[in-house]
Amino acid sequence: MSVTTPQGFAAAGIAANIKEGDALDLAMVVADQPAVGAAVFTVNRAAAAPVLLSRRHLAASEAFKAVVLNSGCANAATGPAGDAAALATASAAAAHLGCHAIEILVASTGTIGTPLPIDKVLAGLGVATARLGAGLASGRSAAEAIMTTDTVSKETVARGDGFTVGGMAKGAGMVRPDMATMLAVLTTDAVVEASEFQAALEGAVDESFHALNIDGCPSTNDAVFALASGASGVRPEQAELADVLAAAARDLATQLAADAEGALRVITIDVSGAPDAATARRAGRHIADSGLVRASFYGGDANWGRVIGALGAAPVDFDQRQVGVAYEGVTVAAEGVAVPFDEMALLATLATGDFRVSVSIGNGPGSAEVLTTDLTPEYVRFNGERS
Amino acid sequence: MSVTTPQGFAAAGIAANIKEGDALDLAMVVADQPAVGAAVFTVNRAAAAPVLLSRRHLAASEAFKAVVLNSGCANAATGPAGDAAALATASAAAAHLGCHAIEILVASTGTIGTPLPIDKVLAGLGVATARLGAGLASGRSAAEAIMTTDTVSKETVARGDGFTVGGMAKGAGMVRPDMATMLAVLTTDAVVEASEFQAALEGAVDESFHALNIDGCPSTNDAVFALASGASGVRPEQAELADVLAAAARDLATQLAADAEGALRVITIDVSGAPDAATARRAGRHIADSGLVRASFYGGDANWGRVIGALGAAPVDFDQRQVGVAYEGVTVAAEGVAVPFDEMALLATLATGDFRVSVSIGNGPGSAEVLTTDLTPEYVRFNGERS
Repeated sequence: MSVTTPQGFAAAGIAANIKEGDALDLAMVVADQPAVGAAVFTVNRAAAAPVLLSRRHLAASEAFKAVVLNSGCANAATGPAGDAAALATASAAAAHLGCHAIEILVASTGTIGTPLPIDKVLAGLGVATARLGAGLASGRSAAEAIMTTDTVSKETVARGDGFTVGGMAKGAGMVRPDMATMLAVLTTDAVVEASEFQAALEGAVDESFHALNIDGCPSTNDAVFALASGASGVRPEQAELADVLAAAARDLATQLAADAEGALRVITIDVSGAPDAATARRAGRHIADSGLVRASFYGGDANWGRVIGALGAAPVDFDQRQVGVAYEGVTVAAEGVAVPFDEMALLATLATGDFRVSVSIGNGPGSAEVLTTDLTPEYVRFNGERS
Repeated sequence: MSVTTPQGFAAAGIAANIKEGDALDLAMVVADQPAVGAAVFTVNRAAAAPVLLSRRHLAASEAFKAVVLNSGCANAATGPAGDAAALATASAAAAHLGCHAIEILVASTGTIGTPLPIDKVLAGLGVATARLGAGLASGRSAAEAIMTTDTVSKETVARGDGFTVGGMAKGAGMVRPDMATMLAVLTTDAVVEASEFQAALEGAVDESFHALNIDGCPSTNDAVFALASGASGVRPEQAELADVLAAAARDLATQLAADAEGALRVITIDVSGAPDAATARRAGRHIADSGLVRASFYGGDANWGRVIGALGAAPVDFDQRQVGVAYEGVTVAAEGVAVPFDEMALLATLATGDFRVSVSIGNGPGSAEVLTTDLTPEYVRFNGERS
């Protein structure tokens, strides 16, 4: 039930003292043999040093031995010293694992603007590889070592016909006191070709992590990595590979939403009737980005006027006379205007927790789902506190 | 000190019982003679009925007799009945004032999705025109009649060489329990030509109301109207007209920010070093849109990592190695990395209230200022409550 469930992988998480105390904060996911790699990175233009380095390695290498991830420090906004620290991390891991630095992918999450304590990382890599060598591998410990404000670790497994996908993730609440970071590593023992694998990962991310709107802002450090060992000997069809990767990614994304900081509810916004799926997703994300809409979710309020207001501000064309809104299947607006409904019954339904908001914006075939959470006073307090 | 300060205007605000109780809720700003009109409307695609009607009137007519505004009901998401109610409002005002319906501009603010009580509006128009006829005009009462969650009315006057601009506004907090709406009416006794007046208004709005980011979402009803009576006989240069209109608009925008719901601080974000002013404004608005950044403002925290994270997510190209951030003139980051500063002294400064965050993103000549407020638990509570 982790990144080590697929054949051909080991993982370890240890306490390198990057965080205070003895919390786990350094993870390695290692392929027994050089693996096919794929990744999706943040679009944030202030991307962190590990993102910049991993992007370069992914473009330049055809095989990957490990992903090294640390929590406790984002190594973002750290300038040339940060770049050197990321490279030193990759080089040290490569030396321990007997490969080239270019075959190592790196990721960090934690405070922005503080230097990565590279001496602690290098010492920790020695400890972690020793544990791996001693057969003390543990996917769970790796999943725990990437946690920041997460209250539980997130792991998953999805099975295809003769092959398996495993995964771990952290986020998508906030790194206290800095920007939200979402990190994930997926592993598979399927036999894959690099460009197909990348395409399948991009599709999986699109309908999972990219459908998740918690803070409405990509972090400096967001990254999703995938490694394929080929150890199952099974080469799935592209469509099946994509489906199983997406199932694993969706499960992780749902776990992230459920553990988002200060959130009391996970809300699914589904948009239908759009010209195409991309338009539907754009509309859904815009609704999910609205603090006003998310505050109404907190109140358990079927405040469809805010939903339509947010929809109208989205970069999407629609005819407001064709808009309908339903909460948990109860239609509250149709053809752009209010319709009668049993308000007390619906409020009682919404009071129970998570719910679904369905927005139809026309007669087109395009639909999409977006996950978000409610905006709570606790979230603001949490993120307003000084570190 | 109101819309009636320029020569050639009268105004009245009365209680039409659109709101509960005897609060003022219907305003008329009337030109003695048909005036030159200009307006800027919301870009929300779910624009309310009064916005749709006023847009048509502005496109079709060359002279305007009055702006009629109501609070208590947005007449948004109200379908064909809403369109009919907006038109009935204009027609009734025109009959009272002896002009064509097309010479009347209308605006509404309040709850989305509930029908405009047109009988109350029509009765109220009779009362308001009777007050105007009896010489009981009052710009202050008009400014009060457009208030929703505003705690104070907002009025202004700016003077040019031989002409005057007056104004009133409401917003930019939220309409409880619906979407934020910002309404403003500017009046002037300058002699203007229609297309110049429209251009000057657009420029004024751009650097005032459009530089104000409270909820990050244009409402269904946002509108700024301007009427020019020409009664001063003075025809200013285009640049002077633009300057004086902008001064009035900026003053109103600052009043709106100071009265935003639940906000404790007004924060000025200035962005410099961009290729041009539009890029600088885009970057500033993106930073001002970030809930994470605004939560850190609430905490009085110089959390520049969040500012850089939000900047990186903006649709703006920059080199993160050239980014600098200062709070109240104290540099906390330069060339993309942390610089030492007296943290205790700065926290003490930020604890005192409003402050300025300066972000430089390169060596270009473009700069812009954006106003926002802090995101507070009170804001979320206020907007999460059911009506």
